[in-house]
Amino acid sequence: MSFALYSPAVQRLIDELAKLPGIGPKTAQRLTFHILRLSKEDALPLAEALIEMKEVIGFCRTCFNLTDQELCAVCRDSRRDAALLCVVEEPSDIVSVERTHEYKGLYHVLGGALSPIDGIGPERLHLAELLARVRKGGITEVIVATNPNLMGEATALYIAAELKDMVESGLLRITRPAAGLPVGGDLEYADEVTLGRALKGRRDL
Amino acid sequence: MSFALYSPAVQRLIDELAKLPGIGPKTAQRLTFHILRLSKEDALPLAEALIEMKEVIGFCRTCFNLTDQELCAVCRDSRRDAALLCVVEEPSDIVSVERTHEYKGLYHVLGGALSPIDGIGPERLHLAELLARVRKGGITEVIVATNPNLMGEATALYIAAELKDMVESGLLRITRPAAGLPVGGDLEYADEVTLGRALKGRRDL
Repeated sequence: MSFALYSPAVQRLIDELAKLPGIGPKTAQRLTFHILRLSKEDALPLAEALIEMKEVIGFCRTCFNLTDQELCAVCRDSRRDAALLCVVEEPSDIVSVERTHEYKGLYHVLGGALSPIDGIGPERLHLAELLARVRKGGITEVIVATNPNLMGEATALYIAAELKDMVESGLLRITRPAAGLPVGGDLEYADEVTLGRALKGRRDL
Repeated sequence: MSFALYSPAVQRLIDELAKLPGIGPKTAQRLTFHILRLSKEDALPLAEALIEMKEVIGFCRTCFNLTDQELCAVCRDSRRDAALLCVVEEPSDIVSVERTHEYKGLYHVLGGALSPIDGIGPERLHLAELLARVRKGGITEVIVATNPNLMGEATALYIAAELKDMVESGLLRITRPAAGLPVGGDLEYADEVTLGRALKGRRDL
């Protein structure tokens, strides 16, 4: 009997919400009943925002950051230092770095980190594009700000190995944000001060 | 600089998600980036489910439960015992009671509980409709299953006072689910066994 209590329309929203990370069936039910209590004017903007976002947002042609244009806001900004490139795993990591106000260069989003166990090899990430971008010249330092965990470290070492010749011929520095980040953690959770200090004290790989 | 990083379309979804109860700005950001990573086919059903639900779901004309028809599924079910009425605060509480499989009567949703501090008096709840429904006759027992907290207790006492004459003339029993529910808690969080036991051991007010 109990399952018949929810109209299919209610059950459908509960199911969809429960697919989100960190949202279990009980939370999905609570959110659904909250939305049911809202007026249409208060509830529909959420759905509209989601639809609009999926319509207009894509990836930057150069750095794979999120953008509603061909190039992202950072790549379009001529005041940024084009000789400095910060490599991150996800677009959300750019937000974390920007919040420190310590960095004025450009970015490159890999779309993840190397993880052989999960079948994520170099071809699954935007690594070829990164190497081409660096080899094209004009970049004097690559800051590899992948997450300070096993996969992020492996990815950093891979990048350092691939660009070893440029480092040895003195064309390039490859650095990594200083210790100070909690090891085993996730860049997204770092507070501004810690991440800013780590960026300032970055060291050569 | 950092606020310019989010496209307005992204920021808008973060803002809308952060309005939901229990979702802070950081969680809203995480959910948004998760949705950004999804394909359109995986992301849009959430928005569509929300829109459809707000289109089709309204309140039952009789008991104020949620329904996509004029009468809710419980009120339409002729097998339910129409002499038994369970009064709850919210439609979600009906789901909790149904899950116990201990109750076969009808419901009445108040839409909240009396709370003078928050300016919620009897006129803000479906109390007049409840009293009219009971006075019309045919109901022999009203189970007041408002939350076992201060507001829920006050609401139960209000109902008992308003129907005192019917109880005294032997026309009606007014009961309350037995202790066993954690006091100060919320009906929505009760597990089936506890709530079922509490319903079985209900006592006269």
